[in-house]
Amino acid sequence: MYNTILCAIENSDEAEQVLEKAFELSTLCNAKLFIMHVIPYTLLPNDYQKELKENALPSIESKALSLGLPLKNVMIKFGKPYEQICALAEKKNADLIVLGTHSKKGLQALIGSTANGVANYAKCDVSLIKV
Amino acid sequence: MYNTILCAIENSDEAEQVLEKAFELSTLCNAKLFIMHVIPYTLLPNDYQKELKENALPSIESKALSLGLPLKNVMIKFGKPYEQICALAEKKNADLIVLGTHSKKGLQALIGSTANGVANYAKCDVSLIKV
Repeated sequence: MYNTILCAIENSDEAEQVLEKAFELSTLCNAKLFIMHVIPYTLLPNDYQKELKENALPSIESKALSLGLPLKNVMIKFGKPYEQICALAEKKNADLIVLGTHSKKGLQALIGSTANGVANYAKCDVSLIKV
Repeated sequence: MYNTILCAIENSDEAEQVLEKAFELSTLCNAKLFIMHVIPYTLLPNDYQKELKENALPSIESKALSLGLPLKNVMIKFGKPYEQICALAEKKNADLIVLGTHSKKGLQALIGSTANGVANYAKCDVSLIKV
């Protein structure tokens, strides 16, 4: 059904739920699974960018390892999350993007700007996982 | 992974792509699949409402039959599409809603108001299928 799935996760506990669903789906479909995390900054000094990446990587890599996924399929990008997600999906020829949507407390539960951007601009199917 | 999938389709040729993906997913997950179509009108005279429903049903039922789905799982509702879709998903305890998003031609491909409403207000996961 899908050949290549890109799962975009935040660096949070909720990310595990999203990654687990993406993993389950990739197993069912026998699809390749890429995991990405976007650090929403650009134009940072190189040293600082490196530090942010090194801070984010261990927790994301450990999530990937716990599912038996190869670390070469884990990617960290810098920039506007939805743009980076859509760009990587195209580069990897993903036919599905999986990402979480925060349930905001309040009268209405609205999806965030990243989910909204991906839903609008992705050229492939998008699965929004409620976390 | 999912137990109950609600697939919302329009009465169009593109609906088949959406329904096929929902069907494939429901098969992979061994999930129950409901199909719905929403006629975006309310406050119609009963006779006219009945006529609209009778006009829409055959093509949707034939799509369901061609996949071997029972006709009791096919539903037609009247009202604001995203509200009706979210309401039926809750009623049926669906854990996934599958629906198509139109790729509008132009500078930017934006999802329609139904997909947007469902993505924002559904209480379960949402899969947006590009058609």
